[in-house]
Parts: sequence; structure tokens; C-alpha cells
Amino acid sequence: MTDLLKTLRKTLLMGPGPSMVSPAVYRAIAQPTIGHLDPAFIGLMDAVQKDLRLLLNTKNSLTLPISGTGSAGMETCFVNLIEHGDRVLILSNGVFGTRMAEVAGRLGAEVDSMEFEWGTPVDTQQLAAHLQKNKYDLIAVVHAETSTGVLNPVEEIGKLVRENGALYLVDSVTGLGGIPLHLDKWGVDAFYSGTQKCLSCPPGLSPVSFSDRAAEKLQTRETKVPNWYLDLNLICGYWAGESGANNSKRAYHHTAPINMNYALYAALREIVNEGTDAVFDRHLQAHRQLVEGLEARGLAMLVSNPHRLPMLNAVKIPQGVDEAAVRSALLSEHGIEIGAGLGPLAGKIWRIGLMGHTARPENVERLLAALDSAV
Amino acid sequence: MTDLLKTLRKTLLMGPGPSMVSPAVYRAIAQPTIGHLDPAFIGLMDAVQKDLRLLLNTKNSLTLPISGTGSAGMETCFVNLIEHGDRVLILSNGVFGTRMAEVAGRLGAEVDSMEFEWGTPVDTQQLAAHLQKNKYDLIAVVHAETSTGVLNPVEEIGKLVRENGALYLVDSVTGLGGIPLHLDKWGVDAFYSGTQKCLSCPPGLSPVSFSDRAAEKLQTRETKVPNWYLDLNLICGYWAGESGANNSKRAYHHTAPINMNYALYAALREIVNEGTDAVFDRHLQAHRQLVEGLEARGLAMLVSNPHRLPMLNAVKIPQGVDEAAVRSALLSEHGIEIGAGLGPLAGKIWRIGLMGHTARPENVERLLAALDSAV
Repeated sequence: MTDLLKTLRKTLLMGPGPSMVSPAVYRAIAQPTIGHLDPAFIGLMDAVQKDLRLLLNTKNSLTLPISGTGSAGMETCFVNLIEHGDRVLILSNGVFGTRMAEVAGRLGAEVDSMEFEWGTPVDTQQLAAHLQKNKYDLIAVVHAETSTGVLNPVEEIGKLVRENGALYLVDSVTGLGGIPLHLDKWGVDAFYSGTQKCLSCPPGLSPVSFSDRAAEKLQTRETKVPNWYLDLNLICGYWAGESGANNSKRAYHHTAPINMNYALYAALREIVNEGTDAVFDRHLQAHRQLVEGLEARGLAMLVSNPHRLPMLNAVKIPQGVDEAAVRSALLSEHGIEIGAGLGPLAGKIWRIGLMGHTARPENVERLLAALDSAV
Repeated sequence: MTDLLKTLRKTLLMGPGPSMVSPAVYRAIAQPTIGHLDPAFIGLMDAVQKDLRLLLNTKNSLTLPISGTGSAGMETCFVNLIEHGDRVLILSNGVFGTRMAEVAGRLGAEVDSMEFEWGTPVDTQQLAAHLQKNKYDLIAVVHAETSTGVLNPVEEIGKLVRENGALYLVDSVTGLGGIPLHLDKWGVDAFYSGTQKCLSCPPGLSPVSFSDRAAEKLQTRETKVPNWYLDLNLICGYWAGESGANNSKRAYHHTAPINMNYALYAALREIVNEGTDAVFDRHLQAHRQLVEGLEARGLAMLVSNPHRLPMLNAVKIPQGVDEAAVRSALLSEHGIEIGAGLGPLAGKIWRIGLMGHTARPENVERLLAALDSAV
């Protein structure tokens, strides 16, 4: 039988994730597996937590990667913080806001959704008015909406959430590593992300972070977390602490995905070594170069200028163009992957990712040239 | 700052997992990441499902790897099959049976546990008597109890479960790839495993399989699965089908852990290419060699002969031996990891794994020689 791994073609990943992975991260993921209680692995766990806190600008001790993909991070935040009947407000302007409402609803929360047009940001004036009349236990928003390319005003929303007394939950699956994050300054209580976007690591882990307020809610729940695998009370018995070479404090919960954590470690080190400001600037420059190139070709962006994400570019599909055929030709003839629209935007936009290692001028040039021949 | 990955020492993994990973699997995990909807990745998903069915001796179309570790597989089986108030019986003779009861209880099941002494198998006569007087919706057992090294009589239990009318759930995290599994013949309705034991793949994925009866229960639930990430109804929209190069039928749910799936693909291919009978025999031979060597040194096994697992060997710690010091010396001086006892067996046993790639005569010899110098 054919070895399918030998038929894999190296692809330029310019979709909504996964993004390009750097050689150092590929080397890392293939390092020899060691035990999940080996002091050497525990040292690496500490280093991962330290680098995550650096990128998130937080002092939260509860900062660690969940053993699942970004959606497992979403599930983790809701299942740990919500109990039956809790009042939850979801600020929704894309697929991932909708998903949040679905996750919270399944856990028995009373969910209100404020819907904003896809492609536009959350309207903080509308939110302020709504919060005058409504109290919530938890309010959640997506920082960087991967389905539309919109940047939501997370800092401004945070102030309103704090006045309301609710816990503040922020999804930044697509933001982490590509735009600044200031969890403590913004008053974020619970945060989750993924590895396969601007961290430029293969998919498989989900960094999460909980503030002391969120950790307190976790400890004062009336009911057990109805999800053993994602119960942070238990997971912290394995991850918490900064014990260095001392593994006696680490209680086995589940076997951590060892090699994925090697990859995350290397990906975080690459960002820290390049410098976060330089990394964010590289994303911005690539984004500007792309938008300029697209507009020069008569293509238009979905999102208006001040609300665009640098790492996720939603491009309107021109009249009469078979969008699926273009994506298919880009992949098969040019070895470039871009993304389709989701939900109401299916068939209406392409999603071009400039995430992490992908956000480089030569990649933008290669895509623009390929588009010239494919459209 | 030191690159911690450069300080990792290649360790001979003879604990309860992770086990040794073969060079082919390390090569696989470092192959270029591609998109989760790339036709090439979908072809690889189909191949993984096909090889899993082969190893499990099942026709179950719902056979796929969950994007989490073995405990995520446990969570998946229970959360999809249980609704509030369902009557569940757990057959428990170790840590993982206890964990099952905890998982089911958190999901609102009415849980009965039948406890059997740790180190002995489930007593089917006792079970038969109990089932005369009790009806259950689901009955669960651990095939290969990693905490004690006991093989439970899964086939015999299956007959009793079927007469009771319950769904039959089997954990074979440690069994898969090391001892025969016959899901269809044994009447198993739900199955989960992990990658880091006898599949000799790094930890991070959990193969699961559901019979048609279990799939029917899934479709006729009165309530939604209270876990969006692990809802098999949704996951099947991405994994189900055998569409080969046609990705139009695949609905995005979450971004699959691409590189972990490469590794699982390669690990399964290695087992199929070696031949399952040859693989099982290699485990058995290594186990016999180990037991002989241990007994020649005056060490005794916890489990009596007919109930021992070949891949997980629980050894009684001799009077007066500092068991933690021995494990520590094996790791630091000999580069060999073995496992400690858990729960009531902490301090009383060592757990020596002979899983997958680890189960080779040269590894057994190396461990016995190291034990001679460390004890």
C-alpha cells in the first residue's frame, strides 16, 4: 500500500489556520518522547507557562495549554465557569461567537446573544445600553473573529463588563502571537487560544489563562465541573506550581501530549526571541502589502479599515468568479491554501491568512502572482 | 536562555506509557503540516480509520481518533451515551475503573460500582448474580487495567451485558496494539484507547469506536450532548464517510491535530506491516522474559499468572527497598523510566511497561541489568 505521507505536498498555508510551521518547531515535535512526570518534562512545562504569561501580559498563575485544540479551550472556559442557570451574554459577530452560545447553552446556562452584523465589530454603545438593564454572570466575546477578519474592541468591552460585575471571557484563538494581548490591563478573566494560528505550531493544544477572580469562581462552584477531562481543578494538580526539577508536587491527571508540548515550547521561544513587537509589526506589514496588492487588482476587503485583523483577511469574491474553482486551482496548481467563507459568508468571501511564520513578504508576493493566474 | 529541548535525554520508556516511539513515527510527526480540509489529509483520515477497524476487528463505521488523550476518549464515550438519570454499572478493579465512575457521575448518571480487589480480575459469577436483580443502560469495564496489570475477561462480561440489555463500554487504552481485540465478536458497543501505549505513538489522540446500537442511542438522545467539543454527532460530519479525494462532504468542526494524525497513521501502518499476530507474540515473549528475570531475582508479581497483562507488569516491592530511590536511580543513572504504584498500590508496586516498540528482548535485558545495580 502507498505510504500516504510520501505523497504529502508541502503547501503554503494561507488559510484561516493551520499556518506555516518553522523548521525549529518541526525539529522540536520530533524530539524523543519522555515521560509526563520526568523532571525534564516538568521543566519544559514551567517554561511554556512562563512564555505564555509573557505573551499574554498576565500574572495569572493559572496559565497552561489544554490537551486539545482551540475548541477544547472554549469548552474548558465555559464548563469550568458556568453552572446551571447562570446568566451568560455572548457578543456575536461570526461563527465563533455563535459557537460560544451553543457551548454555553449545552451546559445549561441562560444565554443571551447580542448579534452584530458579520464583518463589523461589536458596537460598544449598544452593549453599554443593554448592560444598563441586564446583569450577567459571564460575558464573552471573540477578540479576532476568524470567520470574518474583524477585530473586536476587547479593551473597551472589558470596562463595561467589569462595571456589570460579570466575569469576562475572551477567545483569541487567532489573535495570540499576531496582535498584542494585555489580559491583566484589559480585565480579562478567562482566555483561550490555539496553537495553529499565529503561534505557527501544528494544531493540538489550546493555551488558556484564568484570572484570580475566575479561579475563585472555579473553587466556589456548587457543583463539580461536569467534564472530568477539562476540570481545571484537577488539571492544576499537574500543571500548577513552578517546581522546576521537583516532580513530587505533580499529581498525574492525564498523560500530557508530550511532543505537542515540545512544539509549543519551540514556537513560543521563536516569538520571544524575535521579539513580540517585531512579530506584530511583521504581521502588519504583510497585511498592508496584501491589501495593497488585492486592491490594485480591483478586489475589495469585507471589513472596513480600522477594524481589520492583520492575520485574517476577508476578501469579497468578484461577480462571476467561481470561488471554489479558484481555491482548488491555487491548491493543486500553486500549492497554496486559502480559506472559504463560512455560514452566511460562504461563497461570498475568501479568507487569506497571514499568521505567524506565514506573514512574510515573499509569501504575499507568491499568493498575488498565483491569484493573477488563477482568477 | 537554555534551549531545554537540547537537554532532553533519550529515555528507555518502560513505564505505564508513553512507550518508545519508532523512527518512522518520529519522521511522520515532523512532516509538513497541511490543511484539515486538504484532500490529501482526508485520504490519510480514511486510511487511519481503516487500519483502526482492522486492529479492532470491527465493521463499525463510527471509528475515529478523538482530538485529545485517552481520558478524552473516556469522556467522549460517556458524554455521548449517557443522559441524566441513566443507570450505569462500572466494574472497577483499579484507577481507571474508579475514574470511569467519577466521569459518569459528573454527567448525572445513577452510578453503581462493583468493586473487585485491585490486582484481581472482575469476577463474572458475582457479576452474573448482580445482573439477575439489576437492569442497566450501560455497563463499563477496563480491558487492560494500567494501574494493576490485570486483564479483565471482556468477552465473558460481554455476554452478560448483552443479556441485561445494556450498552457495553470497554476501555482498552493499554490493550490496543498489544493484545487481541474483537469488538464485534465480543459485543462491545463503545470503545476507547490512547496512542501512547502499545501503538507506540506520542500521546495526544484517542481512538474510539461505536457500534450501530451505540450510534443509534446517540441519534435518539432526548438532550443534546452537553459537550460540544466531543459531540460525536458533530465530529462525524468531519470524519465519517470514505470519500477519498472528495472533501465536499466534510463539514468543519474543529481543526484536527494534523501532525499527531500523521504519527498515528505511521504507527498503525507499522503494526499492520509487522502483522498483528507477530506484534502480540512479541509482547508475550518480552513479558515472559521479564517475569522469568524478575522471579530469578526473587521479585514477585502482583497479579496471578492467568490474569496478567503482557504489556503492564506490576512487581511487588521487596521489604526494605526505597522504591522511589530505585526509580530515580534507574532514570538518572540508567536512562530508564519505570512507573510507580497508584492509589492503594502506591509504594507497594512498580509498574514495568512492555508496550509496543518497547517490547523487545534487548530492552528487557537492559532493565534487568539496571535493576541489579539499582536495587
